[in-house]
Amino acid sequence: MNAVNDIKSYMHDIGRRARAVARVLARTDGATKNRALLAMAAAIRRSRDKLLEANAADIQSARSAGKDAAFIDRLTLSPDSVEVMAEGIEQVAALADPIGQISERSVQASGIEVARMRVPLGVIGIIYESRPNVTADAAALCLKSGNACILRGGSESVRSNLAIATCVHEGLKAAGLPEDAVQVVATADREAVGVLLSMTEYVDIIVPRGGKSLIARIMAESRIPMIKHLDGVCHVYIDEAADPVKAVRIADNAKTQRYGTCNTMETLLIHEAIAPRVLPGLAKIYADKGVELRGDEGARRLVAGMHPAADEDWYAEYLAPVLAVRLVKDVDAAMDHIARYGSQHTDAIITENAERAQRFLREVDSSSVIVNASTRFADGFEYGLGAEIGISTDKLHARGPVGLEGLTSLKYIVFGHGEIRT
Amino acid sequence: MNAVNDIKSYMHDIGRRARAVARVLARTDGATKNRALLAMAAAIRRSRDKLLEANAADIQSARSAGKDAAFIDRLTLSPDSVEVMAEGIEQVAALADPIGQISERSVQASGIEVARMRVPLGVIGIIYESRPNVTADAAALCLKSGNACILRGGSESVRSNLAIATCVHEGLKAAGLPEDAVQVVATADREAVGVLLSMTEYVDIIVPRGGKSLIARIMAESRIPMIKHLDGVCHVYIDEAADPVKAVRIADNAKTQRYGTCNTMETLLIHEAIAPRVLPGLAKIYADKGVELRGDEGARRLVAGMHPAADEDWYAEYLAPVLAVRLVKDVDAAMDHIARYGSQHTDAIITENAERAQRFLREVDSSSVIVNASTRFADGFEYGLGAEIGISTDKLHARGPVGLEGLTSLKYIVFGHGEIRT
Repeated sequence: MNAVNDIKSYMHDIGRRARAVARVLARTDGATKNRALLAMAAAIRRSRDKLLEANAADIQSARSAGKDAAFIDRLTLSPDSVEVMAEGIEQVAALADPIGQISERSVQASGIEVARMRVPLGVIGIIYESRPNVTADAAALCLKSGNACILRGGSESVRSNLAIATCVHEGLKAAGLPEDAVQVVATADREAVGVLLSMTEYVDIIVPRGGKSLIARIMAESRIPMIKHLDGVCHVYIDEAADPVKAVRIADNAKTQRYGTCNTMETLLIHEAIAPRVLPGLAKIYADKGVELRGDEGARRLVAGMHPAADEDWYAEYLAPVLAVRLVKDVDAAMDHIARYGSQHTDAIITENAERAQRFLREVDSSSVIVNASTRFADGFEYGLGAEIGISTDKLHARGPVGLEGLTSLKYIVFGHGEIRT
Repeated sequence: MNAVNDIKSYMHDIGRRARAVARVLARTDGATKNRALLAMAAAIRRSRDKLLEANAADIQSARSAGKDAAFIDRLTLSPDSVEVMAEGIEQVAALADPIGQISERSVQASGIEVARMRVPLGVIGIIYESRPNVTADAAALCLKSGNACILRGGSESVRSNLAIATCVHEGLKAAGLPEDAVQVVATADREAVGVLLSMTEYVDIIVPRGGKSLIARIMAESRIPMIKHLDGVCHVYIDEAADPVKAVRIADNAKTQRYGTCNTMETLLIHEAIAPRVLPGLAKIYADKGVELRGDEGARRLVAGMHPAADEDWYAEYLAPVLAVRLVKDVDAAMDHIARYGSQHTDAIITENAERAQRFLREVDSSSVIVNASTRFADGFEYGLGAEIGISTDKLHARGPVGLEGLTSLKYIVFGHGEIRT
């Protein structure tokens, strides 16, 4: 047997185990799942020093491999971040159990009562990059939603992930649940991802978490459906009827509160009639914060020294202190721009005009559409989901921030009294 | 340019047109969509003779090509079935418009109001076999749900489908909607399906409707997500605590009301303690109706002359007057059998025991799970959905009978008052 066959049989064994425990997890009651979650959190707190030790070894390898500071930053655990991980699991425990919830009950003419019951998806494969805290977050969300999971973190964080997995398994054991409920892929071999993406018989859904190149690769390769977001080219459109104070505050926040997040504004669209009143002041704020502006002709006429925007700027997800700026002649031109260049992630309109707000809400085809608030709100916690596995820009199944509900499905249940079909 | 390149550019042109009108359809109000639907129904009634003429030509070709009687039967339109088509479109017009519906509105601590709005998926590709009525049904459901559609029927029904499409286009035109909202692929070349399944940039979802071999081929080939059901290996489990009268009536109906449908029972599981009381009587009913029984040892001990069941019988979707019968020792054995051999379509338990009914409802992982009623109820009309594009045995997005809701998605909408994230 060669190495690739070893990886294949290793991954298939993981898949089979996950499928086998999925039925057990689906029928596990909420109290048992919560017992496991609280025991996981306790184990993580108790094992803080071991986690930091394993993480230090990962960091050392990453440094030797010449990884950059941003990478090391994402990889690094601290006493505080270990505590945050434990608290995150406790927050998931505190959420209502979605499984077994019955909704939409109705009585049909035949006499049967039809309803829908929320059920787990089955087996979830999660592929992520260097942040080890995803191991704990994902394990907690999958367990709470009654799913088995297979976690494949970045090869550089494998020691940290396995140390966290030890705590997760302690928690499962404490509640009498099978350890195979959460399996961490222990090999750093990249072939493991390819095998995972091909195991249609064992894995119901893949959730990739990471940068655009990781997700593009997984999209090209996967035979299994995905919940994913590819990129976040988010827009704020300042309408003619915008309140200038709100407009400036929101456009500032949407760009500068954090530069590297997927819900950060990347292109600012401004109605040409209001631009003279808001753009110069905004440009001053951005300049003070070191944000480079790249504008179309109209924008550059209002702000001295602004760089010209090229066509690729309208497509860009900078994730950096750079912003594209364009003047538009009306809300239709703004929506046309968003339809053409956007990524269907999150787009906002700033306006006091109710009709245009309604049109924007209805016609912009993005996972979150916002009136008079910052794009930075597009987030599971801010939306009250209590937790988030990621943000989906897909249209099928889950769209926008994905909480526990996105990791479940609805089946039909029918209560009869001996009815037959005639 | 060779023929395959012609097909490719022909299909890409269809895809581009569909994508272009999807935005128009998404913002079209319900009254306009209903006007188009009612005009389509009127055009179909008015064009009855033309439709039957086109259909007669299809039938003649199919006969010349040596197609069997069942195939010709599925292909054939009659004055009655043309009327049923028109009425089906009128029924879709009478349903509530799902698009723009707002639900789950909540106010968050930050002050923003978060809700979800129902929106179309965009462009739907439907691939079906010989039944021309699917052209009218699918066009109506896609339009009502605000989606553009690309319809690819069987190559043997292309004249009938194009004649129906003419009526659909008349209806669209009468309401001022673009004809590209519903496009019928006019070539019989099978290459067109392959191109359709590759157009990820133009098509959001594929709905295959047809036999297992069609769907298996599409699954293997498609790069686009699907709503589908692969097969229907449906079970009825007669529990120890079943009412014998209900049990016999339901097991009879689930098998014999129609043999060729996906929600027909294919395997009957009977608790060994009740089998002596119900199986002999049931076997007599089946024998009178010409249903062949294939049983395990226990079942054959109770019914003289029953054929032995082989392992492949437990996996079989007969779609014919054949039934596999097995005795089981309890509800766990029944659920184990269903988990191993079933297709996650529709499964029923007959019992008066509430706890076992609850366990079966919760633990059986099928798109419909039924207590004390026939599996034949698993149907969009019987569930009150008003219409049905098919039944999904997938877990993602839509599960079970798929009506208008399954052709839509939910986006998040946020109403702010100038809020920024801190």
